[in-house]
Amino acid sequence: MTIPPAQRAAVIDLGSNTARLVLYYFRAGHSYHLEDEIRAVVRLREGLTASGLSSKAEERAFSVLQLFKDYCSAVGPEVIIPVATSAIREAANGAAFVKKVREEFGFDLRVLTGEQEAFYSCLGALNSVPCRDGLVMDTGGGSVQLGRLVDGRFESGQALELGALTLKERFVRSDPIKKREIKDIQNEIDRRLEKFSGWETAGRRLVGLGGTTRNLAKIQAKRQAFPLDHMNGFVLRRTSVGKIIRTLRRLPVQERGKLPGLSRDRADIILPGALVVQAVMDRLGVDELTLSAYGIREGLFLEHFWSDSPTKGPLELREFSLLNAARFYRYQEKHAHHVRHLCRRLFDQLAPLHGCGPDHRLLLDAASLLHDIGSAVSYNDHHKHSRMLIVSHGLPGFSPRETAVIALLAFYHRKGDPGIREFRSLLRPEDEAVVRHLAALLRLAECLERGRSGHVKDIRLSWSDSELTVTLIADTEPTVEIWDARQLASELLGQVYGRPVVFKSAKS
Amino acid sequence: MTIPPAQRAAVIDLGSNTARLVLYYFRAGHSYHLEDEIRAVVRLREGLTASGLSSKAEERAFSVLQLFKDYCSAVGPEVIIPVATSAIREAANGAAFVKKVREEFGFDLRVLTGEQEAFYSCLGALNSVPCRDGLVMDTGGGSVQLGRLVDGRFESGQALELGALTLKERFVRSDPIKKREIKDIQNEIDRRLEKFSGWETAGRRLVGLGGTTRNLAKIQAKRQAFPLDHMNGFVLRRTSVGKIIRTLRRLPVQERGKLPGLSRDRADIILPGALVVQAVMDRLGVDELTLSAYGIREGLFLEHFWSDSPTKGPLELREFSLLNAARFYRYQEKHAHHVRHLCRRLFDQLAPLHGCGPDHRLLLDAASLLHDIGSAVSYNDHHKHSRMLIVSHGLPGFSPRETAVIALLAFYHRKGDPGIREFRSLLRPEDEAVVRHLAALLRLAECLERGRSGHVKDIRLSWSDSELTVTLIADTEPTVEIWDARQLASELLGQVYGRPVVFKSAKS
Repeated sequence: MTIPPAQRAAVIDLGSNTARLVLYYFRAGHSYHLEDEIRAVVRLREGLTASGLSSKAEERAFSVLQLFKDYCSAVGPEVIIPVATSAIREAANGAAFVKKVREEFGFDLRVLTGEQEAFYSCLGALNSVPCRDGLVMDTGGGSVQLGRLVDGRFESGQALELGALTLKERFVRSDPIKKREIKDIQNEIDRRLEKFSGWETAGRRLVGLGGTTRNLAKIQAKRQAFPLDHMNGFVLRRTSVGKIIRTLRRLPVQERGKLPGLSRDRADIILPGALVVQAVMDRLGVDELTLSAYGIREGLFLEHFWSDSPTKGPLELREFSLLNAARFYRYQEKHAHHVRHLCRRLFDQLAPLHGCGPDHRLLLDAASLLHDIGSAVSYNDHHKHSRMLIVSHGLPGFSPRETAVIALLAFYHRKGDPGIREFRSLLRPEDEAVVRHLAALLRLAECLERGRSGHVKDIRLSWSDSELTVTLIADTEPTVEIWDARQLASELLGQVYGRPVVFKSAKS
Repeated sequence: MTIPPAQRAAVIDLGSNTARLVLYYFRAGHSYHLEDEIRAVVRLREGLTASGLSSKAEERAFSVLQLFKDYCSAVGPEVIIPVATSAIREAANGAAFVKKVREEFGFDLRVLTGEQEAFYSCLGALNSVPCRDGLVMDTGGGSVQLGRLVDGRFESGQALELGALTLKERFVRSDPIKKREIKDIQNEIDRRLEKFSGWETAGRRLVGLGGTTRNLAKIQAKRQAFPLDHMNGFVLRRTSVGKIIRTLRRLPVQERGKLPGLSRDRADIILPGALVVQAVMDRLGVDELTLSAYGIREGLFLEHFWSDSPTKGPLELREFSLLNAARFYRYQEKHAHHVRHLCRRLFDQLAPLHGCGPDHRLLLDAASLLHDIGSAVSYNDHHKHSRMLIVSHGLPGFSPRETAVIALLAFYHRKGDPGIREFRSLLRPEDEAVVRHLAALLRLAECLERGRSGHVKDIRLSWSDSELTVTLIADTEPTVEIWDARQLASELLGQVYGRPVVFKSAKS
């Protein structure tokens, strides 16, 4: 496949509270990353009347759109995807506003329906967490979108007027919020949720995204000393949501703002939002939700990214996710893929000794593709940087636990005695042994691909109780590879697999 | 200037103990970075006799050269720079060896003289630490090179047979090393140093590089909890060297290997090496040396990098160093340079209020070019990543203290209350105020270049005791920039410069 040309896409999202421009750098169907983001508060609903947006709100919107226009002229994105949501959709003068925007700024604003908002939230979720069936909840400031996924596709969805800001403005008069007000909010939530038609078929899996959900997850992450910065795939339990709500109810807004993990500017709206999350979990009868870091804007971009691609649709999410990270950090493609090939050969033949299954094989695959990406930071200590990049970048489709295992394998690909370090709280008891078994294989494969030349074509393994024999298949004698493997890999391999290692070679 | 084409250069260094291939990715005179490194122990001096290299040593060398050849075929560097040093130079069959290498592997080995080794060490030093006059000491395993710099150029140099390995093999028989043996080593050092002809004109500045010096610096870095990973520019004091020697003398080799900062495989040779460093410092009468992270291999590469460049020679080291880092991390050139322009305008006009000098101006310059490079890790939290990258990558030509200030400024370019955090031990007392003053300027400049479009062309400042007026010069009203600056920059600016900030605009 030839590599598609580099392009930039700007998604302009004129939300009720905030206007955002996010810029992606991408090669259609091949790779993408977020390159820039501009955010400005526009408060379009402020002063909204029966006749529509107030002239002040329009002015705010126009000056931000002028900035976005200047930005686009300067940066020159090939693709511009401008959308507006509920404020414009519901304003009586929305159509006139859209026309003015087209004339003055040249942006062809697409006004999304509630169902379309739900669709793009679902598309975001599908591209960030593994989910084929279930409910996707996007907790926004103005409204909450619920979308149903069936067999990996969007089935239907709705926007409900349950945004955190909306509820706060309608019901909250006291600080701390009074019992009576909470009750009113809960009644309103129940009344609105009733109108969602998808409960029966929603399945029992919940994916959450949007400001409120993300903030609840961050508060909980602080409480449990979650060791990753990147929150994609974080599992938030219903019991945790309950506990956070109990804390929030006691605190005045001033104190809430100091809660570790909570953004200060959400202190006033977090509680109504949290009540919505709780109600949806109750209603669906789930004990946990999985956080998606992607939402509407990612969905809008990815629709373009995939539809414009030679493959006309997403690869398997995890496979793509690894390639996308590897490409962003400019991995050495041939070397990485050959190391993966050698790792697979080692893994499959040694199955009776390590007892790991296909899920672990995929983690080894991932680490073999990404083990050197730390060179994008600096060649020196690149194993440390690889770990850091895997954790910072995040790997859509992989859980935090899986991401941690991949980061550890990359960290230990050169040296060190593999342990589970700062990730202990994320891992399962058996993962320590898994990390040791897989790290030993990756380190060996790396030694055998020292010359970046694919010299060692294959590996054959055999063992007795007293010896593990590694036979390297190569056209010419792999002297240095054996030498290197003896110095750097055989001690760990022998330790982990419980017998001394002997290297041999054979002609291919 | 058009950007020169991307190339790769492999420097092959067949040393007495170790053979190395280092691969650089570069655009001549524009940018470069280390991309890969292969190291293999060859011990060429083992079994060396009057008739020359032993056949075993030759075999070891040949199998490594075969690996290097395979590597070069696979990676295809446009430039190959193969050199050999003292072992081949001194071996009776050296010329025959060089001929065989040419015939069998196609590498045209250049056998460096002692003076040439000193020359390339000096070239490495000139490209990594600010030094125009003084002595460059390269402490190798086989020999020590001393080179004199005069007015930023190599003047003369010599290789002395004072390598750590050489001394250890000749004099060390006991563990811990006996007083008598130490005395013998010191006598030998004095005798050899006597032969160096450059003492009178060597100046009073010492730059150190090579394994022994680097390891002494690392030991001292651990002792003083030096907060950077990157050691370039580290200042090692003579008193510290003396203390480390006293510790090393007491310990058997087994215990020495556990000393924090010391590489285990140097435990047996570090003490003789340290005695050389001490003797050179004594002889030169200096209280400190500055560590250079670059040495012979960097010198060999950089000679090519510059001679092949359109400019035919190095730019000012610091300026180049910043551009090189910025380019490696794919900075947004126009945006960064415009932010630098605005920062300079702010800095110069506010000089009466901040009282900072040209050295500080250069640090602000640096931070304005590098503030966004963290996006190469991930756009999210890129301010944190920028700090980390500046520290990991290192900035040749800047001291550790300066690097820390630049990293802090980049860290605070978006938000946070500027402090000096983990870098306290590196900084001077006045640096805390400097960081606050400069961070406030960078943050303002960043807000004013929000649209990446150069919209705000210039800034005029005026102030009274009660007000600081910032007038933005632009073709059209910079509404959003002012809005943004009010929200994100004016609080810090007002605090640091001691009066509230007022924004105005004027037509350009």
